[in-house]
Amino acid sequence: MARLVMKFGGTSVATVERIKNAARHVKREFDAGNQVAVVVSAMSGKTNELVAWCKEASSVYDQAEYDTVVASGEQVTSGLMAIVLQEMGLPARSWQGWQIPLYGSDAHGSARIEGVDGAGILAGFDRNREIAVCSGFQGVNPRSHRIVTLGRGGSDTSAVALAAGLKADRCDIYTDVDGVYTTDPRIVPKARRMDKVSFEEMLEMASLGSKVLQVRSVEIAMVQRVPTYVRSSFDDPENPNPGTLICDEDDIVEQQIVTGIAFSRDEAQITLRRVADKPGVAAAIFGPLADANINVDMIIQVVSDDQATTDITFTVPTADYERARKLLEDRHNDIAYQALQGATDVVKISAIGVGMRSHAGVAARAFRALAEKGINIRAITTSEIKFSVLIDAAYTELAVRTLHSLYGLDAA
Amino acid sequence: MARLVMKFGGTSVATVERIKNAARHVKREFDAGNQVAVVVSAMSGKTNELVAWCKEASSVYDQAEYDTVVASGEQVTSGLMAIVLQEMGLPARSWQGWQIPLYGSDAHGSARIEGVDGAGILAGFDRNREIAVCSGFQGVNPRSHRIVTLGRGGSDTSAVALAAGLKADRCDIYTDVDGVYTTDPRIVPKARRMDKVSFEEMLEMASLGSKVLQVRSVEIAMVQRVPTYVRSSFDDPENPNPGTLICDEDDIVEQQIVTGIAFSRDEAQITLRRVADKPGVAAAIFGPLADANINVDMIIQVVSDDQATTDITFTVPTADYERARKLLEDRHNDIAYQALQGATDVVKISAIGVGMRSHAGVAARAFRALAEKGINIRAITTSEIKFSVLIDAAYTELAVRTLHSLYGLDAA
Repeated sequence: MARLVMKFGGTSVATVERIKNAARHVKREFDAGNQVAVVVSAMSGKTNELVAWCKEASSVYDQAEYDTVVASGEQVTSGLMAIVLQEMGLPARSWQGWQIPLYGSDAHGSARIEGVDGAGILAGFDRNREIAVCSGFQGVNPRSHRIVTLGRGGSDTSAVALAAGLKADRCDIYTDVDGVYTTDPRIVPKARRMDKVSFEEMLEMASLGSKVLQVRSVEIAMVQRVPTYVRSSFDDPENPNPGTLICDEDDIVEQQIVTGIAFSRDEAQITLRRVADKPGVAAAIFGPLADANINVDMIIQVVSDDQATTDITFTVPTADYERARKLLEDRHNDIAYQALQGATDVVKISAIGVGMRSHAGVAARAFRALAEKGINIRAITTSEIKFSVLIDAAYTELAVRTLHSLYGLDAA
Repeated sequence: MARLVMKFGGTSVATVERIKNAARHVKREFDAGNQVAVVVSAMSGKTNELVAWCKEASSVYDQAEYDTVVASGEQVTSGLMAIVLQEMGLPARSWQGWQIPLYGSDAHGSARIEGVDGAGILAGFDRNREIAVCSGFQGVNPRSHRIVTLGRGGSDTSAVALAAGLKADRCDIYTDVDGVYTTDPRIVPKARRMDKVSFEEMLEMASLGSKVLQVRSVEIAMVQRVPTYVRSSFDDPENPNPGTLICDEDDIVEQQIVTGIAFSRDEAQITLRRVADKPGVAAAIFGPLADANINVDMIIQVVSDDQATTDITFTVPTADYERARKLLEDRHNDIAYQALQGATDVVKISAIGVGMRSHAGVAARAFRALAEKGINIRAITTSEIKFSVLIDAAYTELAVRTLHSLYGLDAA
C-alpha cells in the first residue's frame, strides 16, 4: 500500500469524457490498495475564458477578485471528477483550497504556499480510503480568508505541496506527454525519454524553457524530497507507461554528464555601448529594472574597444523588452551610454547535467561545435550544473541538434 | 442614508456589458449615500451548462458535488461585479457563501437557510462604505463546511435573507420585468403594474404560478418584514421606475378585493371513480403519494351517482403525473376503485386578494362569469385570500381575461 497524489492538467480534463478517462487511472491506483489524493486543473480553455472576462470588466482588475473568478474553473473540475469516481463505485469527495485548507500568501495572482493542513483528507483515508479530489491552483489566505491562486501552471505546485503535506510516497503528474525528454522531440526527432532525472537538473530544465513542469513545483519537490513522476494521461489506464521519475541524484545509478538540452525563445537582448566605466554604473542600470519588476537574466560586461568605456549586454523576457528599452532611454543622462542596441530574434540554448560538476571543459566543447556550424554566440552564462548560450533564433534547431548529438543524447 | 440589498438575476448579469449596466444602478444608490450589499446570480445559461456536465458525469450525481459545481457560476459573477464597481471608482469586494458566512442546512441542492452572519459585511460598511458583492444561491453548512445551494431561483431567497441578516431598510430585486403585474401581460395586454402588493398576496401569487419571485423568498420577506421591491435592471440607471413594493398589508391604503390573477399550467388531474366509501380510503390514496414525495394540490371528494361509492379528484405536478398513475394502479386492490381517469391538458387559474377575507361571494361571481363564457370548471379550491379553479387548458387566456375584467383590474 502506498499513499500518492495524482495530478491531471487541463487537457487531461478538458471534457467530461476525458475526466472519465483520467478517473480510470485513479481507479487503477485505488484498486491496487493505495490511498489516493487527486489534484485537477480547470478544463482546458476555461481559465482563458475567465481571464478574458476579468480583462473585459477592467483593464486594471483587482487581483483578489481575479483569483475569485479564475479559481472557479478548478472548483468545477473537482466536483465533476468526484461525481465520476462515485459513479465508478469509488468513495470520493471534492476539496477546495479553503476546505483542505491549503494556505497561500496574500500575493494574489501568484501566491506562495504557506502550508497544507492534511488532517481532513487523512481522516478520509483512514475512514474508507476516500479519494480526495482537490482543486489545484488555488488556496486560501489564513488572515483575510480570501481565495488566492498560485499563478498559471500552479496546479503542479499544488500537487507537489499536497504530496509533501500528506507525506505521500510519490506524486504523479499526468500530462499530455509521456515523460521528460532529453530535449523537445518536435525539434530533435532523436530525443529520448529519460527514465530518471535529478531534481536539480529538472529545476534547471524547467527554468530554462522546458514546459513540462512548473519551476516552483520542482523546487518544492526538491526541497521536500517528493519523488515525482511525469507521465501521460492518454496511456491505456490498464497498462500505462511509468513515465519519468524526478528524484534524488543519488538514486540515479548511471549518470550522464549532460542529461538534457533546453531552449527558450522568450528572451530579448539589450546592449548598452560605451558606458562610462565608473563605480555604481551597474546599479544605475539594473536597479531601475528590478524596481520595475523586470527579470534580468544573462549579464555580460566587457571593456569597449576604446579601452576607456565598457559594453554591457543582458537579456530580459520578450514581454518586458519594450518597457525595459523605454526605461533605459529615459535614464540616458544618468547612465551615460553612447548607444542602446537590442534584438528580439534571439534564443537561449542551455545544456544541463549534474555531471558538469566533476567534468571540466564541457561547455568549451559546445562552443567549438557551434563555431564549426557557423553559429555566432552573443552571450554565455554558466552555473554549476548548466551553461547557456544566446544565439540568433534562426539557428535554434541546428544548435539544439548539434548539442544533443555532441553529448551523446541521440536515441540509437 | 439607508441600508439596502440589491439583487440582480441571471439575465441582468448575462454578459460583462450587462454587469456594467447593473453596476450603474449600484453606483446610483451608493452615490445617494446608502450602504449597499449586492447579490448576484450566475450569468444566464451558465447554471444550465454546469448542470448538464453533472448529468453527463453521472445520471445519479451526488448532490454535494453538484452544489460544488454549480455554485461556481455565482462565484464568477460576484468577482466580475466587484471588478466592475472598482473600475467605476467604488469600494467593493466579493463574498462567497462560506465567506459571509450564510449558513445552510445539509439538504444539498435545496438547502434551508439556517442563518446569516453579517459581521464581516457590516465592518466593511463602517470602514469605507465598502459594497459587499455576494454570490446568491449558495451557502455553507456549518457542520460539514461544504458548499450548499438553495435550489433554482435561490438567489432571491439569498437576497431577502441577507437583507434580514443585515437589518437592511429594504431589498430591491432587479429582474427583466419592471414590477409585479395584476396578471401575465403576455396574456392580458390590459394587465397593470401594481405599486404595492401585500406579502400574503405575493406569497399566493408566487405559489400559484407567477414566476416573478421565488416562493421561499416571499416567505422570508413576510416573516422577517423586509420591504421588498421588484424592479427592472433594464431601466435607465439615472432615472429608474420604482417597481412594485411588497409590504405589510397595513401599508397599503387603497386595498382591492382581488389584486391579481395567477395561472399555472404545471397541473395534472387524476380522478378515481366509485371508490368504496369507507373510513381510511383517503389515507390509502394520499399516504403512498406523500411517501413518494408527490405534492397533491387540489382535492375534491363527492358522492358518486350510485350514492354508495365516492369519486375523488385531485391534482399533481405534471412532472409527477405518470408516476402517480402507476403508483395508484399498483394499489388497485387496496383502494378498490372502479376506474382511474386523468388529464394533463388542464390549467389552474387563481384569483388572489386579502380583501376576500371581508367580502362574501367573491368566488361565486367568478363561477358565474366563467359559466357564461361556456367554460367548464373541473375542480375548485378556496382559502382565506384566494380561490383556484381547474379548467381545460384551451380556455386559459379567455378565463384569465374574463376574471381580470370582472374584478376591475384592467388598465384604463
